[in-house]
Amino acid sequence: MRPNNRPAHQTRPINITRHYTRYAEGSVLVEFGETKVLCNATVEESVPRFLKGQQQGWITAEYGMLPRATHSRSQREAAKGKQSGRTMEIQRLIARSLRAVVDLTALGERTITLDCDVIQADGGTRTAAITGACVALHDALSKLVADGVLKQHPMKALVAAISVGIVAGEAVCDLEYVEDSNAETDMNVVMLEDGRLVEVQGTAEGEPFSHTELLTLLDLAKQGIQQLISAQRQALNLA
Amino acid sequence: MRPNNRPAHQTRPINITRHYTRYAEGSVLVEFGETKVLCNATVEESVPRFLKGQQQGWITAEYGMLPRATHSRSQREAAKGKQSGRTMEIQRLIARSLRAVVDLTALGERTITLDCDVIQADGGTRTAAITGACVALHDALSKLVADGVLKQHPMKALVAAISVGIVAGEAVCDLEYVEDSNAETDMNVVMLEDGRLVEVQGTAEGEPFSHTELLTLLDLAKQGIQQLISAQRQALNLA
Amino acid sequence: MRPNNRPAHQTRPINITRHYTRYAEGSVLVEFGETKVLCNATVEESVPRFLKGQQQGWITAEYGMLPRATHSRSQREAAKGKQSGRTMEIQRLIARSLRAVVDLTALGERTITLDCDVIQADGGTRTAAITGACVALHDALSKLVADGVLKQHPMKALVAAISVGIVAGEAVCDLEYVEDSNAETDMNVVMLEDGRLVEVQGTAEGEPFSHTELLTLLDLAKQGIQQLISAQRQALNLA
Amino acid sequence: MRPNNRPAHQTRPINITRHYTRYAEGSVLVEFGETKVLCNATVEESVPRFLKGQQQGWITAEYGMLPRATHSRSQREAAKGKQSGRTMEIQRLIARSLRAVVDLTALGERTITLDCDVIQADGGTRTAAITGACVALHDALSKLVADGVLKQHPMKALVAAISVGIVAGEAVCDLEYVEDSNAETDMNVVMLEDGRLVEVQGTAEGEPFSHTELLTLLDLAKQGIQQLISAQRQALNLA
Amino acid sequence: MRPNNRPAHQTRPINITRHYTRYAEGSVLVEFGETKVLCNATVEESVPRFLKGQQQGWITAEYGMLPRATHSRSQREAAKGKQSGRTMEIQRLIARSLRAVVDLTALGERTITLDCDVIQADGGTRTAAITGACVALHDALSKLVADGVLKQHPMKALVAAISVGIVAGEAVCDLEYVEDSNAETDMNVVMLEDGRLVEVQGTAEGEPFSHTELLTLLDLAKQGIQQLISAQRQALNLA
Amino acid sequence: MRPNNRPAHQTRPINITRHYTRYAEGSVLVEFGETKVLCNATVEESVPRFLKGQQQGWITAEYGMLPRATHSRSQREAAKGKQSGRTMEIQRLIARSLRAVVDLTALGERTITLDCDVIQADGGTRTAAITGACVALHDALSKLVADGVLKQHPMKALVAAISVGIVAGEAVCDLEYVEDSNAETDMNVVMLEDGRLVEVQGTAEGEPFSHTELLTLLDLAKQGIQQLISAQRQALNLA
Repeated sequence: MRPNNRPAHQTRPINITRHYTRYAEGSVLVEFGETKVLCNATVEESVPRFLKGQQQGWITAEYGMLPRATHSRSQREAAKGKQSGRTMEIQRLIARSLRAVVDLTALGERTITLDCDVIQADGGTRTAAITGACVALHDALSKLVADGVLKQHPMKALVAAISVGIVAGEAVCDLEYVEDSNAETDMNVVMLEDGRLVEVQGTAEGEPFSHTELLTLLDLAKQGIQQLISAQRQALNLA
Repeated sequence: MRPNNRPAHQTRPINITRHYTRYAEGSVLVEFGETKVLCNATVEESVPRFLKGQQQGWITAEYGMLPRATHSRSQREAAKGKQSGRTMEIQRLIARSLRAVVDLTALGERTITLDCDVIQADGGTRTAAITGACVALHDALSKLVADGVLKQHPMKALVAAISVGIVAGEAVCDLEYVEDSNAETDMNVVMLEDGRLVEVQGTAEGEPFSHTELLTLLDLAKQGIQQLISAQRQALNLA
Repeated sequence: MRPNNRPAHQTRPINITRHYTRYAEGSVLVEFGETKVLCNATVEESVPRFLKGQQQGWITAEYGMLPRATHSRSQREAAKGKQSGRTMEIQRLIARSLRAVVDLTALGERTITLDCDVIQADGGTRTAAITGACVALHDALSKLVADGVLKQHPMKALVAAISVGIVAGEAVCDLEYVEDSNAETDMNVVMLEDGRLVEVQGTAEGEPFSHTELLTLLDLAKQGIQQLISAQRQALNLA
Repeated sequence: MRPNNRPAHQTRPINITRHYTRYAEGSVLVEFGETKVLCNATVEESVPRFLKGQQQGWITAEYGMLPRATHSRSQREAAKGKQSGRTMEIQRLIARSLRAVVDLTALGERTITLDCDVIQADGGTRTAAITGACVALHDALSKLVADGVLKQHPMKALVAAISVGIVAGEAVCDLEYVEDSNAETDMNVVMLEDGRLVEVQGTAEGEPFSHTELLTLLDLAKQGIQQLISAQRQALNLA
Repeated sequence: MRPNNRPAHQTRPINITRHYTRYAEGSVLVEFGETKVLCNATVEESVPRFLKGQQQGWITAEYGMLPRATHSRSQREAAKGKQSGRTMEIQRLIARSLRAVVDLTALGERTITLDCDVIQADGGTRTAAITGACVALHDALSKLVADGVLKQHPMKALVAAISVGIVAGEAVCDLEYVEDSNAETDMNVVMLEDGRLVEVQGTAEGEPFSHTELLTLLDLAKQGIQQLISAQRQALNLA
Repeated sequence: MRPNNRPAHQTRPINITRHYTRYAEGSVLVEFGETKVLCNATVEESVPRFLKGQQQGWITAEYGMLPRATHSRSQREAAKGKQSGRTMEIQRLIARSLRAVVDLTALGERTITLDCDVIQADGGTRTAAITGACVALHDALSKLVADGVLKQHPMKALVAAISVGIVAGEAVCDLEYVEDSNAETDMNVVMLEDGRLVEVQGTAEGEPFSHTELLTLLDLAKQGIQQLISAQRQALNLA
């Protein structure tokens, strides 16, 4: 049995709170059960050097975890003087996932940075971050439209992410920490509402996994993504 | 006139929320108006090397600000690879202030780290951090007593901190950002309930200040501290 | 058409040269066409701190690219003072892939480090690195057996990796640089000979990809892996 | 009794040697007893980026301590690869103190950097540094006037700094190391000749201090500052 | 006796392989016996800031050693986050040696970087690097001439480097690792074909060395350099 | 003509002041004309890890230059976060030079660190540093003997260093900055009183130099070293 008797295909309770802080152009607190990530979107009127003069914008992301977001305290990356490989991997994933749903040419020569900071961690922080950052980004882009800076909204589709995995031989959706740390296979899936894939990252933590297991996990992910995008739509008051 | 017609001696609305996150031994969200700081206390069963074998404990602190806590985004210190001088100055101040009210011998050979992370900044983040961290530390110590690890509570008194300053020629208490950035003199005061001082840091940003102005500011600080300690007592359900 | 009229399912010429340098316990130069990676395996009689006393070994990896392995020179990471996110991501992937095929308990309390240094890069450096490192690791483990340190060889299976992707609308196997930089979808697959998966990482660089496309790519990867494992077997003189 | 029977209100012997090195625009060795700090002022014809085009100058400071300035050797910050929090705190204090007495608009778009390097440390290095740097800065500004670069001297007043504290229950002025390391309360005061304050930093190292004690310390500081400014005037041949 | 009965004045077998990698403007694998260094020359159309507008070019060098080039693994400098003093010393020496034989004005405002990466180390890596880099640089310059970018070849002479030393009381040429680590005196000599010196670096590892010993070593070096420059000429098909 | 009509073979005025600071076990200010270097020797009762248990001591050195030791200000290495290649090269040279004259076995398991900090620089800082550090080291060792820690003085000979070079076609001794920056050839020689060599580092800055020129420079160096060692003897009151 999963904790709280949660069915295998069921996500944890999802909460998306917009306008969580005052100053960012988009600010979302996303909760996947006890996992809580604050996603702030900042618009800046410039692009990185490699894009100068190319008449397109850029989406980037940074990820951090408060030292005591977890059961035991981890060292502050600012104090260590460098970001871990895990942090860099995650922030690259968030940025790629969001760029996949934005028309960068329509954005014009500006950069939107998504700061995803984990307030509390109970597994699935990267998938929550992508899911919340999508809403924060949507708000920041809507503001550019409302302010007359952009003529049309450059977001092409909503995107969400979910972790799926095999725990004690069973395929389950949206793993919490106690499941994640015991999973034999762990897979993060970034998907659009129409089921098309932006990113698939599956890892055998124990035994390698079969083609059939992969298909089962993808199917579970698809179900979870539907629940997440539905929560995003509701938060954004989209039809 | 101050923003919102606030009287010169009045603090902003103070909110102290305990148990804000789940895992830390003490976890407090402190709000001074729009300034919001999360203060997490972590207990570890060891002391820094310079205290090994001396049969006393240690209190330390780290301070951070989320990149978009402020009106414009600041670079993430973890990405820059080092903490700024301002950050180091503040975290040293927080730690000194808290050590002043704890009987380190009664704490035994353990370390309590206070992580103070600014979620939203509107002036006075360091004074809010000290005021909130005192409550988080109290909770962490109470837990050690409740768990039977300590016989008596090692906190000797509550401590709080307030900023006072001279803005447009007038002495005011608990400056918000728009005041702080225009202050001629800026002073942070860390004080006990009985009016004794733990730390005084006064800085002339424009003209030097007179002895008389210093006394006026100290008096304002004393009034503000009463309000803060009263809020701490209420949050902690102390008489 | 692909460069050199290469069929979609065909890998580039694969060369695996063992004993490429003199001092490492395993030393392999692996070539996927013009991509050349030197994989050196080092055995050390200790384990990282988090494994001390747990009676198991560890496999780790480091990845680097000579500054002029590519068409234009990139800055040396040692001179910059830090490894890029891409480098860290790759070396974590190499290490996870190899740990999946080694019985770490049978290895005993020792660490094997795989240094994968790219001499020349024409796409697919991480997949070549995994494929070559597997052979270098096999040699290092065989030496431990031959020296009487280990009773049985702790490698459970051969593992190889291939990149597959969609280029100009067509699914192709083992992308070279000119293909990789124009791919709409890019997927790295780490697989055992029996088709079970160790790692799948698929990324939409342009349009999201469909479930069907994913299946096509996985099938292509499987064919490529067969060719790679066959080359590994031949190099190792295994039946 | 204090070391050498020094009365409570008395500073150590103060020596200020101008033109200590040849190349700097201002170069002063300041001695507070056995504490010796070399203060070099450098004029550069540019301002930091945040001041570009604002038709004003800037004063900044850096602080360092030779590894064997103290009783036991401390690690060289250049070798450690970063400056400590203490170093940053001190150099920020020195710079603020000097900016308070210079008309930055009259200085024009140029930067003066004060390098304060401790040759020998016996307590009070930051107060000696401020006191000596004021003289070095005065010399550098005088040179700009003498060279016809500036029409009038931009220094508005002399500034000096002194440490005061409570040691063994007694308030004393200009603490040397053996006193400083045993002080219950420690306060650094930066003051003009007319008694107005630029900076006050008081810290309870042991018990908190009372309002009355604060006043006693400020009074002692005022007496010490008179002695220091008198020494500055003499060194500068000012009336 | 030396290893392999090598006579005192004899270098190890020298091999110089041009066009070792595909993309660099000059790419040479140089072998001094078991020491193998890959030297890649990169041409860039800019100069460092301190040379901007001075109508001359620049030659620079970087040196690295693969972690397992040696008998035991050394830590990767990119992972440590800094280059060692030894690395910096060597790359500065390589660059100075090559600048001595190039007419920097004839090169025009461009920079050539020599990346010297040690694939396998058995003593004399810095002398092999200089000797190989000279050939790689010659090729890169020839390409600039062939492409019509330069009218005449800016290399004024070939340069090579050799290590000589006193081992077990005997002066020997081109020390391999086992000799180098036991040498009483160790000297690296960078010389032109006509015997003129570019650099001499002699170090007493044990006893100081006499003037006479210095002369003997210089004479041995001269003989070794003849063999090296002859190998360079042959590789470059120069008369 | 040289500055101040100094003859080619003549060093600048040499001053060696012992006991320059109070706390170091050896403390020497050495002056070669306007070049002034403070050399402090610190004794510590431990050895680096690679020497643990080998019953011998170690001599190491660190070098730094105050930011305004020179005509224009250079950036502080502690602020940059790393030491330059030049700094590392020099401190390695100082340490090697001193180790050559100490019986490390007689020193026992302790480390002596020589901190050489340049107060003012007018050429020849590394040679002045070696010359002064030798005296500071002698004092530190004498103190160990006087304190009864060592039975006999472990210094086997005095060592000094001088720069020689070819300036405007003429060989000269002890170059000052204006000569050094125009030298065609520059050579640093570390020598014992008996003329035996510890280190020779000759570099062609412009044209390569001939064997004959090398001999002329060595002869000049020998004369300079006599003057330096005579000054060391006088400072140490040795016969």
